[in-house]
Amino acid sequence: MAKLLYVVGLGPGDPALLTGQAKSALDDAQLLCGYKVYIDLVAPLYPGKPTLTTPMTQEVERCRLALEAADRGQTTAMVCSGDAGVYGMAGPILEMAPTYPEVEVVVVPGLSAALTGAAVLGAPLMHDFCVISLSDRLTPWPVIEARLEAAARADFCICLYNPSSRARADYLARACAILARSLPADRVCGWVKNIGRPGQASWTGTLARLAEEQVDMFTTVFIGNHATRLAGQRMVTPRGYRL
Amino acid sequence: MAKLLYVVGLGPGDPALLTGQAKSALDDAQLLCGYKVYIDLVAPLYPGKPTLTTPMTQEVERCRLALEAADRGQTTAMVCSGDAGVYGMAGPILEMAPTYPEVEVVVVPGLSAALTGAAVLGAPLMHDFCVISLSDRLTPWPVIEARLEAAARADFCICLYNPSSRARADYLARACAILARSLPADRVCGWVKNIGRPGQASWTGTLARLAEEQVDMFTTVFIGNHATRLAGQRMVTPRGYRL
Repeated sequence: MAKLLYVVGLGPGDPALLTGQAKSALDDAQLLCGYKVYIDLVAPLYPGKPTLTTPMTQEVERCRLALEAADRGQTTAMVCSGDAGVYGMAGPILEMAPTYPEVEVVVVPGLSAALTGAAVLGAPLMHDFCVISLSDRLTPWPVIEARLEAAARADFCICLYNPSSRARADYLARACAILARSLPADRVCGWVKNIGRPGQASWTGTLARLAEEQVDMFTTVFIGNHATRLAGQRMVTPRGYRL
Repeated sequence: MAKLLYVVGLGPGDPALLTGQAKSALDDAQLLCGYKVYIDLVAPLYPGKPTLTTPMTQEVERCRLALEAADRGQTTAMVCSGDAGVYGMAGPILEMAPTYPEVEVVVVPGLSAALTGAAVLGAPLMHDFCVISLSDRLTPWPVIEARLEAAARADFCICLYNPSSRARADYLARACAILARSLPADRVCGWVKNIGRPGQASWTGTLARLAEEQVDMFTTVFIGNHATRLAGQRMVTPRGYRL
């Protein structure tokens, strides 16, 4: 029998936003691994199922422990918020997987914050878009800056992950300043906080205002393209249909 | 009671990849609207539930009929493949919605092909990425070309939707030629066809080879960033963790 390691995207955390495939993987698993915050989202659904957690910066160790557990024959699920393959654990697990040739890694996709946040605001990502993380823990800031600049100049809709943290309180303002080199101050923007969780909140406004917004690490930010507008209260990017 | 119009992302079509929220919306709806191919995916789950379809190029008419049905008090679900807000029907519906002020539009996100296709290949979108449609039905080709060029130069992972159709058989090759101006010929690429449906197939190779691949409108294409590589058989973009 195959030794199985599922890498499961939970979506925002609300069990209603789990897919059937994700539920089946969690059902099937004998061990649930993950960052504690995410384990806390699913563990209540599986009382008594063993869990394995490591702290925030111990991602690689967490992945190794999951691969080792699966290699010992314990069907394992590594849970990730959002999608497993978007800034999630599917990457490092697959990079290390060749060391555990008997383990079959199954990536189970989930709703990333770009999609769930967009649904809250309206339809800001209806046209070509970029997803950019503002975290410079693993990516040099000049790379992030170049991507922001390129995305704005090519008129992409833009979705920003990790727009802030305690150590990076001014990063969203810095990003807005870069975008403002090529975008007008009245470009339509929005953010969503705690998507699909208690305390969900959202905002829409202009790029100039966005720079002054206080956001946290649980916020996802959206910047429109040239055609994005508010329809009623909703942020919408036209695809180009003649209405 | 609210007059409700759900715009529902079905994901790739396999009922196992529906979210609970999407299922609830389909359960709740008294009328299912959509392009015939997508209605055929869900109608068997709801025998006897009325459906309303329009042909391929009649998207605007389809959205108007759905808004009118909801406005008459019939709880309606407009179904979209993938995500409702990524090249889906959430956009035109929200643009037209202010004309029907009593209708509440609820966007129900679903797994877009960028996420489900990535999961099949491995984890190609683990770092900042762009989603670009090669369809020039609603977008001038020079805009698409400029976005391809910007995405490649800023070292984004790239996901291409609508890489081909009967009328645009050579568009993927044209896109590859544009990307090849700034990317090396051995850049890791991949595609997935009929994601989560019968006939699912996938391929990985180089940018030079990708230009020669025959793909269809049910194919999603992935182009790696500078660090993307094959780990065993899987396409993986490192996030930057020290392994």
